[in-house]
Amino acid sequence: MADERTLAELGEFGLIAMIGEAIAQGPMPASVQVGVGDDAAVVAVPSGRVVVAVDQMIEGRHFRRDWSSANDIGRKAVARSMSDIAAMGATPTAVLVALAAPADLAVGWVHDLVIGMVTEAAVVGAALVGGDTSACDVLTLSVTALGSAADRVVTRAGAKAGDGVWVAGDLGRAAAGLAVLSRGHRQPKSLVSAHRVPEPPYAAALAAVAAGATSMIDVSDGLLADAGHVARASGVTIDLEWATLTGDSDLEAMARNLGVDAATWILGGGEDHALLATFPANANVPAAFRRIGSVKRLKSEESEEVLIDGRAAVVPKGHEHFR
Amino acid sequence: MADERTLAELGEFGLIAMIGEAIAQGPMPASVQVGVGDDAAVVAVPSGRVVVAVDQMIEGRHFRRDWSSANDIGRKAVARSMSDIAAMGATPTAVLVALAAPADLAVGWVHDLVIGMVTEAAVVGAALVGGDTSACDVLTLSVTALGSAADRVVTRAGAKAGDGVWVAGDLGRAAAGLAVLSRGHRQPKSLVSAHRVPEPPYAAALAAVAAGATSMIDVSDGLLADAGHVARASGVTIDLEWATLTGDSDLEAMARNLGVDAATWILGGGEDHALLATFPANANVPAAFRRIGSVKRLKSEESEEVLIDGRAAVVPKGHEHFR
Repeated sequence: MADERTLAELGEFGLIAMIGEAIAQGPMPASVQVGVGDDAAVVAVPSGRVVVAVDQMIEGRHFRRDWSSANDIGRKAVARSMSDIAAMGATPTAVLVALAAPADLAVGWVHDLVIGMVTEAAVVGAALVGGDTSACDVLTLSVTALGSAADRVVTRAGAKAGDGVWVAGDLGRAAAGLAVLSRGHRQPKSLVSAHRVPEPPYAAALAAVAAGATSMIDVSDGLLADAGHVARASGVTIDLEWATLTGDSDLEAMARNLGVDAATWILGGGEDHALLATFPANANVPAAFRRIGSVKRLKSEESEEVLIDGRAAVVPKGHEHFR
Repeated sequence: MADERTLAELGEFGLIAMIGEAIAQGPMPASVQVGVGDDAAVVAVPSGRVVVAVDQMIEGRHFRRDWSSANDIGRKAVARSMSDIAAMGATPTAVLVALAAPADLAVGWVHDLVIGMVTEAAVVGAALVGGDTSACDVLTLSVTALGSAADRVVTRAGAKAGDGVWVAGDLGRAAAGLAVLSRGHRQPKSLVSAHRVPEPPYAAALAAVAAGATSMIDVSDGLLADAGHVARASGVTIDLEWATLTGDSDLEAMARNLGVDAATWILGGGEDHALLATFPANANVPAAFRRIGSVKRLKSEESEEVLIDGRAAVVPKGHEHFR
């Protein structure tokens, strides 16, 4: 039964104890040498190189409690950060969370949030190893994910002219799901779920390293924006083939229903946490990836960094905070 | 000259570029293999064991912009997290920050904040290697610090009966400084500065490991609360000698001025980020530490975990969020 006390009634130390108990319900990998409960956690990094990223979710901007369950929000917060680790070609091993929450928040809600976090971490054998809690008028979650680097890390900077451009995972479904929720609907589940709990293709990331990926990025700002990040870091042009990006019948039907251009979601929608990677022409690309374009030489300072079917892309470039 | 544009005018990508430039003003240690600008950072961990902690600061709860400069707040945010790494007996190497800020915040303020963060990290040769930015009505900073473990990590759990209890750094000055600021004063600087920018004894932490410290903790919740954490984790009683805790003339004069019992600050005040450690009786304890008590056997379930001069301590036990 849900604990309906508030955080104010439980207090910080009670909350920390509750979180510790929730974490204990998940597996604790041998790599975790010191977990929750000390000044810091200690985690094995067999490769001697730790991969680390932080990402935050803020109520009203990244999630709404009436649109997503606490469990969903916990899963998504962890998935977002672990996806960044995967995009470097590494396996996430440990997660820390800084939780700032209103004092009138229900203890049961936080419990479900933590269970969601532990559940998502366990998908790749990772564990929640530390964190911090504080009172705050706005509910915010900042999640740090760690991984041990593979023999090679894959950055945004290695794409070469002649490489193919490939993607693993969905594109635009999270944005479509958000549009559905924004209009007061809860269906279709396939789209709404993509917004609530993304499913980053963690295993595909490791396979991509092994197959010789030359660059990789987590698609979180939108395909065009993220392809642009790779193009700029690598000094190349990326030419996407529109025909390869169409054919998601759920998404396209919903776009027609809502009178939206599906391209807005496919090219501009973030938060699917697909992986965009480039591979040499002769690479044996893992089955999780599909080819969506090619890498070309950047011809001059004026050249466009991302093209669609050889022409400058003109759809919205994704979400930008503060604007 | 300070950049008076707002974050809304600069936009998220402009902000990220500005932060990158501010970071480039600090040193970048060789241990940072991939820094800001990719999906995740990659940092060398020569020992194969990473030490990691996260801590957050929230406007109105942990700091006020009219009491501390942006530079002070940046230094403090980083010092808090790096102090947790030091308390495990490790040297901090890298820091990440999740910044959530109102869109009307001045760009120049964030610039100074980042410079403060880079400055504090550089005190121990660490660098800012990553982060996340988002709009939020409440200004919050969540800082993750990483370090490479020494041969041995020092947890809260190793204190043994017969050990001495030692402290490095100030006790109660940050709380006294906060009390001064709360009453509208700005002097004495020695106390106010302790609140604005704590100076964790980073070097003493490494020396403590080498000298055989059996337990160590960052004093952030207050001496009694943190001694209690060590006592509980180690299954011992800690007996503090009051006479060793007195004699800070600035602090005691201010306590008399304000009509406050100095013990409230010394025993209950957090945020000085002193280090509390236990050492065997025959240890050659580093000069940065002074002896403040001894570890005793916990006699029964009912025994007090922390005593002062052999008697139960009855002063406030420090700050607790949500209460």
